[in-house]
Amino acid sequence: MRVIGIDPGLRNLGWGVIDTEGSRISHVANGVCKTLNVSLSERLLSLHEQLSAIFSAYAPQTAAVEQTFVNKDGAGTLKLGQARGIAMLVPAQFGLTVGEYAPNTVKKTVVGVGHAAKDQVAHMVRVQLPGADLAGPDAADALAIAICHAHHGASPVLTMRQRA
Amino acid sequence: MRVIGIDPGLRNLGWGVIDTEGSRISHVANGVCKTLNVSLSERLLSLHEQLSAIFSAYAPQTAAVEQTFVNKDGAGTLKLGQARGIAMLVPAQFGLTVGEYAPNTVKKTVVGVGHAAKDQVAHMVRVQLPGADLAGPDAADALAIAICHAHHGASPVLTMRQRA
Repeated sequence: MRVIGIDPGLRNLGWGVIDTEGSRISHVANGVCKTLNVSLSERLLSLHEQLSAIFSAYAPQTAAVEQTFVNKDGAGTLKLGQARGIAMLVPAQFGLTVGEYAPNTVKKTVVGVGHAAKDQVAHMVRVQLPGADLAGPDAADALAIAICHAHHGASPVLTMRQRA
Repeated sequence: MRVIGIDPGLRNLGWGVIDTEGSRISHVANGVCKTLNVSLSERLLSLHEQLSAIFSAYAPQTAAVEQTFVNKDGAGTLKLGQARGIAMLVPAQFGLTVGEYAPNTVKKTVVGVGHAAKDQVAHMVRVQLPGADLAGPDAADALAIAICHAHHGASPVLTMRQRA
């Protein structure tokens, strides 16, 4: 089964695709969708276009998005929320349901502890997906989310409304 | 010129369309996109589909979205942000730039004071758009945003990437 993980962000949105076969996982692709400093609506449009192209290219069967950490910075939360809206919309447009995992759950699954540092996550992603060339920390996080989703029994729950 | 105003929300997203000719404005249509209590990604998909259908049906030439009030409730801000992401995406997909106005600016333009109550806004919308049958407070707010955009010299700034 093909699994995509998404680490939402307005400036850098990480994504990572893996294949699972039983308990074996293998790397397919990873990357970061970047948006320039144009207007908010144009950035969201760009994210939507980039992410839709990735779904078209790799045809994932199930998707997972990191649950956003809600902090005290309301403006930052709002900005992230808008990017996350796009990250949640695209899988639905492709007929997939979306798993959501808290950052600590992802870290605990991939590293073994909930408070792992970013480079520990990247290290364990490299160990579990040998040969994967990581496009950066956001792409590593996205692969970690995909691995977490696979471990938690991701199923290709396609809705009746298959699109794309 | 045809102007659409959008009051973003996950459960109730208000929208209102007006026509402007010089300083004269007239009502075209208004309503509320509602989403049921299904998964977040399905709600965002439903909002995207409903709002896209409204843009197709009424072909607005310019759009305005209310600037979201960032409060201390991080989870609420995140939820609203995700809905607002869709409200900002759809106009961009139709090649429109999006005006953003703070709630106080909208109230000041339509009612004359920045701290007007919700029913004062609805009242002044009815006065300025005689004959308009308001679909509810969120639709009234959306028409107020459209009126505000018209007053602030809304221009049909189409990007080069005309879609839809």
